[in-house]
Amino acid sequence: MAKKTAKPTTGTKPARTPTRSTAGSRTDAAKSAATLKRINEVAGAVVKTSMAGRDPFVVIPTRSLSNTSYNRSKRILEMGSASQRRNLFNLGQAKKFMQTMLLAKGCKDLIERDKTSSLRGMFYAGLHTIEGTKEKTFEDQSESDSILEDLEVTLESLREELHVYADKRGDMVGNITLIDNGDEIDCRRMGSGGYGIPSITEPRVIQFKKCEAEFVLHVEKNTVWQRFNEDKFWKKHNCILTHGNGQPPRGVRRLLQRLNQELGLPIYCLLDCDPWGHYIYSVIKQGSISLAFESRRMAVPDAKFLGIRAMDYDRYKLSDDVQIALTDRDRTRAKQIAEYPWFAEKKQWQKEIQALLRNGFKMEVESLITKDISYVTEVYVPDRLKAEDWLD
Amino acid sequence: MAKKTAKPTTGTKPARTPTRSTAGSRTDAAKSAATLKRINEVAGAVVKTSMAGRDPFVVIPTRSLSNTSYNRSKRILEMGSASQRRNLFNLGQAKKFMQTMLLAKGCKDLIERDKTSSLRGMFYAGLHTIEGTKEKTFEDQSESDSILEDLEVTLESLREELHVYADKRGDMVGNITLIDNGDEIDCRRMGSGGYGIPSITEPRVIQFKKCEAEFVLHVEKNTVWQRFNEDKFWKKHNCILTHGNGQPPRGVRRLLQRLNQELGLPIYCLLDCDPWGHYIYSVIKQGSISLAFESRRMAVPDAKFLGIRAMDYDRYKLSDDVQIALTDRDRTRAKQIAEYPWFAEKKQWQKEIQALLRNGFKMEVESLITKDISYVTEVYVPDRLKAEDWLD
Repeated sequence: MAKKTAKPTTGTKPARTPTRSTAGSRTDAAKSAATLKRINEVAGAVVKTSMAGRDPFVVIPTRSLSNTSYNRSKRILEMGSASQRRNLFNLGQAKKFMQTMLLAKGCKDLIERDKTSSLRGMFYAGLHTIEGTKEKTFEDQSESDSILEDLEVTLESLREELHVYADKRGDMVGNITLIDNGDEIDCRRMGSGGYGIPSITEPRVIQFKKCEAEFVLHVEKNTVWQRFNEDKFWKKHNCILTHGNGQPPRGVRRLLQRLNQELGLPIYCLLDCDPWGHYIYSVIKQGSISLAFESRRMAVPDAKFLGIRAMDYDRYKLSDDVQIALTDRDRTRAKQIAEYPWFAEKKQWQKEIQALLRNGFKMEVESLITKDISYVTEVYVPDRLKAEDWLD
Repeated sequence: MAKKTAKPTTGTKPARTPTRSTAGSRTDAAKSAATLKRINEVAGAVVKTSMAGRDPFVVIPTRSLSNTSYNRSKRILEMGSASQRRNLFNLGQAKKFMQTMLLAKGCKDLIERDKTSSLRGMFYAGLHTIEGTKEKTFEDQSESDSILEDLEVTLESLREELHVYADKRGDMVGNITLIDNGDEIDCRRMGSGGYGIPSITEPRVIQFKKCEAEFVLHVEKNTVWQRFNEDKFWKKHNCILTHGNGQPPRGVRRLLQRLNQELGLPIYCLLDCDPWGHYIYSVIKQGSISLAFESRRMAVPDAKFLGIRAMDYDRYKLSDDVQIALTDRDRTRAKQIAEYPWFAEKKQWQKEIQALLRNGFKMEVESLITKDISYVTEVYVPDRLKAEDWLD
């Protein structure tokens, strides 16, 4: 039995009044002003140094594994204090310096015009051939993506605060009403399709209006989400139902964090019993290693792993048909994940990963369909919630 | 200048009254009954043959390129009349015969319980080890997917009518109100996220309630869709805005067809200027070659290709930065597509593909961002619509 940490009650309760969310748009105007101010400061320093006849530079915090650490008290990944200078008069740094200035200007324009752009759009917007040369400002999008990440850490602003978005994936239904760009979205009345979670879920875009839900159930796949929605699980269990089509994109992660922090909703994750499912949980909970600087605004350290558990094979007397053999790569990955500091310290997780390795096979959420199509919504998840049986 | 075929007016107009849609759910009960009847007929014939001591079989229409043809008057791909027997007492056919029966029963159960299942779910639901052997009913999901396609053609039912769904992708906003599973969805008030188009968009799930929109703009990528939504293009131009995250899934294609046929809305596609963009258009318009039997219920023969056009490079004086060189594979693909019967007969398309090959480079919709972030929503698409300039 897993550690008991939170109790989702099922009785009726008054709707939660959002605490910080109503002031969302005002806060955000202030935030945009602050972001613009930081961009101007960086630019101002460059101008000042140039006018003084010295080599202009920007200081960029180092985004590398070596500068990443796990903060035990906050239970999230954090970026360390290492940084590096990027100088204009340095053959190896001049191009990146120019790209940094170019994209900082691009973000400034976006914020001032109150528009947003995709990563691909930022690449095209900054793309041109440098006058008098055949050199392009960017070789490909990976160059501009990387510089945008530099800007995020330099300006201490999430990419979304710089008005830049990535792909959008994931849908939501449940007992919550929110405001999205001024439109009231009643997630109780979204049919079979659901509300498409936008790629920017910052308070300037999304404000929470009314929420009776007592928890969030986040599932890995849209096909599983459809099963839960069709069975009206969120209505029966007074919750919110989300998915992120696999590894959830930033918009979904940020929304989960806001639902957790602003509305106090526990986040329960229903993922496959395999290293990929464990990794998705790890990213939702502690943040991703490659983008540690975003954890503070994306991670949900209190998120729980509801299943599928390795013991479910015996516990639910599943047939051996559901077994998907572990590959060598799966075994390596499972061992790597077991060594993540936030898993390493947890006996429960060590046992879980050992059990997966001992089983020798993976199991998908869909494997429960071998019992009944609605077994997962009517038996498995209600059982877990009732027993408060999850991994933390 | 392209052929003029339809004129999207921009004046005010009374809202369109859906013609066939209000009767959606009633029609559908009848349709479910008809589907069940056909399943029972197939099963009944097997029982009758068995009881008579003969070798039971099912007749499966042949799903192959050789049995696919382009219907010039309907302007869609169609399946021919070739079919094959699948016998129980034939070593090479017995397993497939058994699988066909197993999944037909699975679909019958779904329809009777009024539930739906994912393709993966159908695989698990039918999966078991055959008694007294070590043989599984299915080796992997590709086997059950293929049998489900056989059932679609045998029962003359779309997969969606068998209550089976695939992944869901794509979002919608615009001047339309629809009913999804009893919930009223006002697509004018869906914020930045939009309404997530479900994977089953049959009349039993989705009915159109009120629509002022005069056309549908379908774009390839969600990032481009976000630009159009943010600029409220659908409000300014009185339309519906959809995307399918690349190659649109069946739910999106079926919805486009219903918007076109039931509400009489022209469908304009904004896709990349490359063989993949042309192929997406081809699938929306005529259907896909591998699943020709579904075209009748999915294809939109009147769909128009708005752009990006090869001539746009000169027409809009784009810089050479937007050029993405064609690969050998692109060239081969472009030539294959030029030979599709529905492209082969059209001088305009032959010219377009020739121009692409002559250019030697592809262009993405996003390339217009090099002019301005909103150039595509404020200049390019309005220009095309005003000039009635598109490919058919």
